[in-house]
Parts: sequence; C-alpha cells; structure tokens
Amino acid sequence: MYGVILSNIDSPADLRRLPVSDLKELATELRRYIVDTLATHPGHLASSLGTVELTIALHYVFNTPDDKLIWDVGHQAYSHKILTGRRDQFPTIRTYGGISGFPKMDESPYDAFGTGHSSTSISAALGMAIASNLQGNTTRQHIAVIGDGSFTGGEAFEALNNAGVSKSNILVILNDNGISIDKSVGGLSSHLTRITSSRSYNQFKERMWLRAGGDESRSRTKNFLSKTLFVTKTAMLKGANLFESLGFRYFGPIDGHDVENLVKVLSSLKEIKGPRLLHIVTKKGKGLKMAEKNPVVYHAPGLFNAETGNQISSTPSEPQPPKYQDVFGHTIIELAKENPRIVGITPAMPTGCSLNMMMEQMPSRCFDVGIAEQHAVTFAAGLAAQGMVPFCNIYSSFMQRAYDQIIHDVALQRLPVILCLDRAGLVGDDGPTHHGTFDLACLRPIPHLTICAPLDEHELRHMMYTAQQPNQGAFVIRYPRGRSVHADWQSPMEVLPVGKGRCLLEGERVAIVSIGHIGNNALRAAELLRQEHHLEIGVYDMRFLKPIDTDLLDNVADRYDHIVTLEDGVVKGGLGSAVEEYLAQRQLDPTRHCPLVHPLGIPDEFIPHGSVDLLQKQCGIDVASIVATCLRLTQNVR
Amino acid sequence: MYGVILSNIDSPADLRRLPVSDLKELATELRRYIVDTLATHPGHLASSLGTVELTIALHYVFNTPDDKLIWDVGHQAYSHKILTGRRDQFPTIRTYGGISGFPKMDESPYDAFGTGHSSTSISAALGMAIASNLQGNTTRQHIAVIGDGSFTGGEAFEALNNAGVSKSNILVILNDNGISIDKSVGGLSSHLTRITSSRSYNQFKERMWLRAGGDESRSRTKNFLSKTLFVTKTAMLKGANLFESLGFRYFGPIDGHDVENLVKVLSSLKEIKGPRLLHIVTKKGKGLKMAEKNPVVYHAPGLFNAETGNQISSTPSEPQPPKYQDVFGHTIIELAKENPRIVGITPAMPTGCSLNMMMEQMPSRCFDVGIAEQHAVTFAAGLAAQGMVPFCNIYSSFMQRAYDQIIHDVALQRLPVILCLDRAGLVGDDGPTHHGTFDLACLRPIPHLTICAPLDEHELRHMMYTAQQPNQGAFVIRYPRGRSVHADWQSPMEVLPVGKGRCLLEGERVAIVSIGHIGNNALRAAELLRQEHHLEIGVYDMRFLKPIDTDLLDNVADRYDHIVTLEDGVVKGGLGSAVEEYLAQRQLDPTRHCPLVHPLGIPDEFIPHGSVDLLQKQCGIDVASIVATCLRLTQNVR
Repeated sequence: MYGVILSNIDSPADLRRLPVSDLKELATELRRYIVDTLATHPGHLASSLGTVELTIALHYVFNTPDDKLIWDVGHQAYSHKILTGRRDQFPTIRTYGGISGFPKMDESPYDAFGTGHSSTSISAALGMAIASNLQGNTTRQHIAVIGDGSFTGGEAFEALNNAGVSKSNILVILNDNGISIDKSVGGLSSHLTRITSSRSYNQFKERMWLRAGGDESRSRTKNFLSKTLFVTKTAMLKGANLFESLGFRYFGPIDGHDVENLVKVLSSLKEIKGPRLLHIVTKKGKGLKMAEKNPVVYHAPGLFNAETGNQISSTPSEPQPPKYQDVFGHTIIELAKENPRIVGITPAMPTGCSLNMMMEQMPSRCFDVGIAEQHAVTFAAGLAAQGMVPFCNIYSSFMQRAYDQIIHDVALQRLPVILCLDRAGLVGDDGPTHHGTFDLACLRPIPHLTICAPLDEHELRHMMYTAQQPNQGAFVIRYPRGRSVHADWQSPMEVLPVGKGRCLLEGERVAIVSIGHIGNNALRAAELLRQEHHLEIGVYDMRFLKPIDTDLLDNVADRYDHIVTLEDGVVKGGLGSAVEEYLAQRQLDPTRHCPLVHPLGIPDEFIPHGSVDLLQKQCGIDVASIVATCLRLTQNVR
Repeated sequence: MYGVILSNIDSPADLRRLPVSDLKELATELRRYIVDTLATHPGHLASSLGTVELTIALHYVFNTPDDKLIWDVGHQAYSHKILTGRRDQFPTIRTYGGISGFPKMDESPYDAFGTGHSSTSISAALGMAIASNLQGNTTRQHIAVIGDGSFTGGEAFEALNNAGVSKSNILVILNDNGISIDKSVGGLSSHLTRITSSRSYNQFKERMWLRAGGDESRSRTKNFLSKTLFVTKTAMLKGANLFESLGFRYFGPIDGHDVENLVKVLSSLKEIKGPRLLHIVTKKGKGLKMAEKNPVVYHAPGLFNAETGNQISSTPSEPQPPKYQDVFGHTIIELAKENPRIVGITPAMPTGCSLNMMMEQMPSRCFDVGIAEQHAVTFAAGLAAQGMVPFCNIYSSFMQRAYDQIIHDVALQRLPVILCLDRAGLVGDDGPTHHGTFDLACLRPIPHLTICAPLDEHELRHMMYTAQQPNQGAFVIRYPRGRSVHADWQSPMEVLPVGKGRCLLEGERVAIVSIGHIGNNALRAAELLRQEHHLEIGVYDMRFLKPIDTDLLDNVADRYDHIVTLEDGVVKGGLGSAVEEYLAQRQLDPTRHCPLVHPLGIPDEFIPHGSVDLLQKQCGIDVASIVATCLRLTQNVR
C-alpha cells in the first residue's frame, strides 16, 4: 500500500533520518499514495499534489512541531498530514469521525493553526513569532505557506504590511502556481508572471542547477546561495517587487518540485533573521497528467481512476435534479439577456458557483475579483450606485468576510445588490470552517435587507427574478450546495410577493414552519407521518426570513398548538428566534391562542465534517428526527 | 462670516468660473471657515485641513457630480461639503438633523458614495468605473481619494489588485500625510517614506516648481508633465513601487498644498486612460499651527480657540467619572504587570482606545497593526495559540470587519483571545456608520464565545480581570464610548462567575433585565418610578449575554408579570431575543408562570447621527421612555 520509504515514516523525526538523496523517491511514493487514496476517497487532489516536495523539504529542514508551520487555506496539506503521524488514517479524510480535510489544531500538534478560509496564515504566523520573541525564544521558526491565489485576500496584505516592519522570525513561502481553485486573477498575478518569466529568473535557474549539482557542503552552499540570491534579489528589485516594498527580504523564484534544492534553499533561509519571503513555482496537480492539464476540475475531482486519472461518473438510472449552482448559472444568463443592467460577480469561485457559464457567454458583464470578499461586496455596491444590478455570488461562510461591507456599503445605502449565498447550511465533508450556518442569524439584524431562501430550483429562479425587479433594494438569496429537488427546473419565472410565505400542507395540531431547501425534509416527514402514523401535520414555507410574514405566522398560531421551526442554520438568532420573537409579541394580546414553539436547526456548537445526512442527524434536522419530534408533540398536546 | 470668494461659491460650477489665480486665496478662506466653524461645532478638524487644496483642485478640474468623487473614510471631506452646496449648513455638521460628518449619498448628489469605515473607496470607484464602461460612457472619471493610513486596510489592496488589470477609468489619489488617526504604521508607510525622501523626488519637485511657473499653456504643460512624470515614474520603479507592481500607472509624489500645480497635474491625468495613481504629500492639520504640530489630538479636538488653536476644556465643578477608555487603558497595564502573558493589540486606534498608555510603558507588549481588523484578530489568535493572552481592542462597528476571523480563527479553535469592543452601542455624532449596535446580535450565534458588557467601570475591571484568568477561552467585553458612572474607579478586581447576572433592585410586577452601561438608565428609571410614582420595579443586570443566566431568568419569570429587556444594541437577535427564546422554552412546562416580554433596544432601522441623549430618546431607551414603558405596563397588568 505504501512505498518502502513512506512505510517507515511515522513522524517527521523518521523523515529527518533519511539521506537527502532519498527524498525524491519519497516524493514519488507520497504522490502515489495520495492519488491512490483520493481515487476512492474524494478530496482536494491537485493542490496537495503541487506541494509534495515542499512539504518534505519543510519537515526535513525545520524542527516541527516546535517550529511552527501554517498552511494557508489548508487544501494543500495532505502530504503534511501523511508525514506527521496520520499516514494510516489518511483514507478516513473528510469522513464523519475521520481526519479533517484541513489542518486542525485539535487533531495534531503539527497542525499549528487551523485553516480553511484563505489568507490567514501570515497573520497567525506573525502572532506566533511575536509570542516566541516575548517568550525569549529567538531560534524558533514560523512559516506560512500561502498560494498566489490566497495572496489576493486583503488580510494577507494587512499581515505583510505589519510583518514587514517587525523583527520577527517569519518565513513566508509563496507557492505560486497561477491558480487558486480557478485561475488566479488581478494585478498581483500579472506581477508574479512578470517576475517568473523575466530573464533574470531564467538565468538564475540555470546558475542554480549548475552550481547546486557540484556543491554538497552545507556552508559552501549557503555561501553560494546568499550570493546568488542577492544578485537575483537585486534584479527583482528593478522589476518593482511588491514584497520588498513592504519590508520583506525576497528570495526566488525557484522550482518548487526540486526537493533537494528546496532543502538547500530552506536550510540557508533558516540562518537568516527577520521577515523573509521565498517564492517557489509549482504545478498544481503535479504528477497526474490529467490534473496538471486541468487543475480546476482536479481541484476536487471526486472519484477517479488512479492510473489514468479519468473521472468516474456513475450514470444515474433516471434524470437527476440539477445542482442549485447550475440553476443559478443558467438563470442569471436568462435574466441578463432580458435585463442589460445585470452583471455577475464572484470572488474567485466562478466554477464552484457556476458563474463561469455567464463568463463564457457574456465576458464583459462578469467579474472574478480574486479571493476578495470585502472588495467583491463594495465593488458590487459601486456598480449598483451607478444603476447596475449586480448579482454577487459568495459562499455563505466566506460572506462572513464581507459582513461589514454588507452593513456599511450595501444595506445602509439601500443599494440594490443581490447577494447569492451559495453553500449555505451544512456543506458536509469540508466541515466547520465551511458550513454556511451563520448567515441567517447574522444578516437578520441588518436593516433594509431582504433575506430569502428557496425550497427548490423553481423557487430559486423566482427569487432571482424577483430580486432584479426595479426598486427591490438589497436582496439576499441563500441556497445549499448540491442538488435541488426536481429534474424539470426550467419553469417560467414569477415575481414573488416579498415578505410572504406559503402553505405547503395544511394539517392539525403541529405545524412545521421552515425556510429554504431543508423544508423538503419537512415535506418528507409530513408524508411519513401521514402514511405511517395517520397524522396530518401542517407544513409552511416562509420563503422570506426578512421581512417575515406575520400574517402567515398569525394564521399558523391561530390554528395549531405546536410550531416546529426548521432551518439549516444556527437556531440562535435565526428563524427560530424570529418566530419566538413574534409570538412573544402576539402574547401581549391575552385573547389570542398561544402555541408552543420548538426550534430545530443547528445547535450552539461547531458541527464537524461528514456527510450532510449524518450531520443533519446529529443536529436533529433529518427526516427521521423531524418525524420523532412531531410524534412526541402529538402524543403530548397540552 | 465667509471670505469674499467663498461667499460666491454655491456649487462647483461657481468654482470653475474662477481664474486659477484665485484658488490659493479660496483655500485660505475655506481653511478659515473650517477652523472658525469647528472651534465652536466640534468635528474632524485636522484631516479636512489637509485636503483643502486637493478638494478645490478636484472640483475645479473634474466635472462633478457627473465625474464620481469618493472620499475614503470621509473625515477629510468638509471642504468638499462646503464647496458642493452645503456651505451654509456646515455649522449643523454632526448635529441631530444636521448634515453628516461623512459623505452620504442621501445628502447630496456630489457624495457619490457613503463612507465612514476605511479602505472602501477604490472598490466603489472601480464598480462605478465599470458601470460607466458598460453604459458606454468612456469619458466619465472615477476618483478615489484615500489616505496612506486607509491603504493598510486589506480591502484597498484587494481593490488595487482587481483595478490594476482592468481598463477602467479610475484615478486613485493617495493622500500621504503619514498619519491616519494615530501615526501610520507598517511596511507600506516605510515604503512611502522611502519614496518621498528619495533623491529623485526632490529633484522632481525642483523641476516642477521651476517649470510650472513659466508655462501656462495647457497642452504644453501636459507635454512637459508626461515627460517629467515619466522620468520620475521610472526612477520610482527602481525603488520598487508597490502600485506599479499591481498594474497602476504611478505619478508623483507632488506637494498636495500647491493648488495651482495640483490643477495642472490633475488636468493632465484626466487625459490619460486606465488605472492611475497620483501620490500627493500633505500635512494633516495644515494651516493651524497647533494641529500641524499635534495632528493626533487635533484629529477631532472638540472645542478650541479659533485663533490660537488652544483646546477649551471646561473644568467640572466636581470629579468626573473616568472614560471607559481610560479605565481600559489603566487596567490593562495593571493586569499586564501581574500577568506576563498579556499583550495589547489595536488596529490603528491606540489613542482612541487608550492602549497608548500601555504602549508607552510596555512598548514591546503592544501592537498597533494598522487599519487592519481582520489581521488584528487572526494575529491575536496566533499569539494566543502560543500561550499569550491578547487583549485585542477594536471599535464595535469596525469589529464587523473581522467577523469571519472571530468565527474561524478564534471561536472555532477556542483560543483565549479577549476582544474588547470599544464604542459599543450608540456613539452619537459619528452616526450610522459608527454606531456599534450589531455586536451583541451578530456574536451571540457564535459557539464558544463568552460575551459580556459592564454596567460601570468597576464591572469593566472585573470583566477584564476575569477574562485573563486561565482557561477562559474566547471572551468579548463590549462597552460604550465616553464616561462611566463613578469617579472612584480604581477598585480591587474580582473574578466574576461567568454566565451569571445579578439583581440590582428587587421590585414587583415589572422587572427590567439589561446588559451593559445602558442598565444605568434602568436604575435611574427605577429611582424615578419609586420617587414620583411609588412603584418598585426590579432591575437585573445580566452581565453576560452568553452564556446567559437561565437561573436568573427563571427567578425573574417566577416573580414578575412583565420583563422589559434593555440593551444598547439591535433588538433583533440580541438580549431581547435571547430572553424571548428562553421564555419560549420555559413555556413548554405548562405549570410555570409565564411573564410577558417587552424588548427595548435599537429598532430595525439605521439610527442617524446626533447626541446620544437624542438618539436614545428616538429609540425609546432613554430614562423617560423607560419610565413611560413601565408605567404603561403597571397600569395594564394582565
């Protein structure tokens, strides 16, 4: 199962006992193990293939876990997990109870800092470096590995700006592969391309190969290296190097797949104090032809053939419902054809959110702004201020990055920005960093926002259609990752009455009041209760969290004894709270019937990774749990 | 009251009719008017004095409001307000019903985008520029004026990265005065200093002065300018210019107080397409000696003598309670002397939050990280991960910028970061961009956070003392701007039981349950009710919003008919919701008494600027409103 060398590495200490000459073979074995495992246990493939040599070199040269190693975003840390005592657990990655797909402090002392969202690594490493200073430890190293894509996130810049003037022992490794999940965009990306394609870089590379071969002595290498790097550094300066301008000593660019050279360079850099940045160039998907050729698809390819790399798609026996993502992608094109004011914005997720379809058909009206959620939202506000209707598509958990901009730039100014929050609710295997469970609760307190969530693909289309009508103001539409409900999604669109819900099923005694896709669990639960327990419960789809439909709530409160609220988001502050707030006010009128409220949703804890079904069960919002709750209530009417 | 020239300027059209030679005198008049007005109507003085010439030149050269002008942060836009039809209203600035202290879209078509929080201007300008492109307008100009301080905010970098590769008609003016509110910090600041102190800059300046004098023809100037600027640009490149590396054409640096030259340069830049950055050097506080000398104090000096600049402080007849800020400032030093693990962090507000006291005494343990809230929080998490106890002090409304980091880096990892949220609740004159009213509601849904708010300065000290005890995890302490309650603040500190509230006054029928400083209004209301209406109401201080004291709530629910919740934050999702949620669950037990809940707090709308007293009244949380609410309830017991 493992190669000969890898099978003997239970921790980085074992790695450090190997001769340097074994590292190349170890890289091959590691890569093989990652490919073989992920072929049948889906995960983030291409990023991790790109950092195999870097990971080996880092653990070989640095004294982890005492030296601190932080992987930005963390997609690329699979080799790191395998080399740091989790080799045998690796096949459990991203499964319920198994190891996380991201570095996680709880999981291993080698995971110095948890990551999942991008652009945090330099900040965290700087914090640790300053802590070491204050604790009198002047030798500990603090290393942040960050991709060129993550560098576009503003927090990385904030951290560089701060770190560049510190005297801290911090080493930033810029893993430059020209790609985040989609292709990297923006001025920085062009800047890096200019650097790596410049003559000096190529000269430098040649010189490195030439000299490195004949020189095995550590100190001589170091000497040579500092000279050579200095020359290159100066050359780079003439090309206006962003990192030097912020106070970092810049080294590179060097080949990130030459493990022996990486070991040499890192050993030398270890001897230099202060903030340093090493620019390495890698290939995302390295070692698997198909992944190298199409790193966007192979970012997380699902099941594939380990030898050929071909993706394995099971052909379903009947037509499947479309993904919400694709409904969004097709529908925005449909709308944009009719409404010339519509534009599409994504912060670095064109493929993930399916805006790429519109980018192909209407390139001048789509904007991939890089990993830059704050900018994405204010940029959308700027467009809206000038009469455009921007659909800004952001994953729910990444929207948290733009919370202030939603308040300050969009809602306060009542600008008609349409925020489509993809990956809302439990996302499954990516786990707690990626669950989009805070959106309803954190957005509901913001004035002037309309907040809705579709039950199915038809509703998503209606909501998108409604949001782009004139004078709708700021609109939030949140929907989950994955498949919707009906195969026949291409229905005509209708304007929905804003702030009005609907009755899906009338019943007695117990009513479920839900919002969004999770309402399908309510419908299935009602069906089971009817068939198996001869109970008719009511099911209501609020459609809008804000403004909330108080007529509907009054109607439900008049007729039922129990209201079960159901949402795929945190209960504290979300729909459950909204209904409880409303009923508390209704109680002020003593003549009115007062039902009891039972809020179902995400409890007040972080939910781990695992399949959505298992996680829903853990939270008590799967069909069986809803059935059980309703049964309990009907047997217990007050 | 106004100078001769200023009195004739009712709009930029009037300005554009002046000969260039009048502009210098206009600058003098404008500066005089700002100083005279702010001497008796406190506002943001020094920033606006620094941009007088720039503002004149911009409105002189560009066709506002068709050309879009966006003032980052907006502190510096007073001249802009005066020149764009608000000259006569200027003395109403920052007063209830008067004009806002910040640009505001509702207020004037010349305020192209509302600002208040920093680093948004380039994003908004880019959005507008792209909108113009799409609308076929190729001549409209889009100008963002942004200080070197605001440039440290990551969103500015995100926007530069995006704008640098666009073909948009965007002009960024970097207003470099080396200061935000406190002194600018970080690598970028050093970079700018290197640029402006370099030989090429000084040579350039000389050449500019020399040539500009003898050359009045527009086209010749342009010719000369593009040549000269090109030379300088090249020189700058050798010095590694950050802006060029991101794809902007960089021009400057030039003197931002030479209005005639500014007019020339801007006229030339108008003719150039694509993303451009003009670097101007200004002096914050320009024209008022005291303000030039001490721009930190004169950022917003309060009342002062218009001639001498001396601040006017009224001597109170009796000792005043300290500001919460100063209690924080003194207390963190006291704690840090005992606990060597404590460090202090501020994103660019050392003076405002009073961390400057500790910075003086313990410079190695304090960190001003620049306007960089995201970085501040992850940096704090990094420190905490390595065993330090960081107090990270952020204004409540700016904390919104770090919402994701609080979830992802602090709470999820249970790191003992202590967030002190200053300026929580209604802040008064700064208005809706600065009110810290969302913190309770948006933080409450986050697992693992402890959230509390002090009733007075003793409580703030107890909470800070409690938070830094071992194993407390992530802790949020929010408190308002301004004075606390007692003059004798220096009491011994105690460990508070986490998640426990307290009874301040026992009473009957009606109980007020409050959190934080606003509870003092409850106490005063109770006192009035007792004295004037012979009513004894209960007053309870929750201390902690999370975990919430359910024993206390049960106790109150058992004994009273009405619970009035009181908070200086949005009602939706905050304490009111928490109490309503809890009581909704209590109702599931039909044997228990069920009081009615009346939530008082910030309603679901953005609250304008004005004095805190007036705003509290508007929200129904001032003493008189609370008295009225309680009277209504006692006359109406069910």
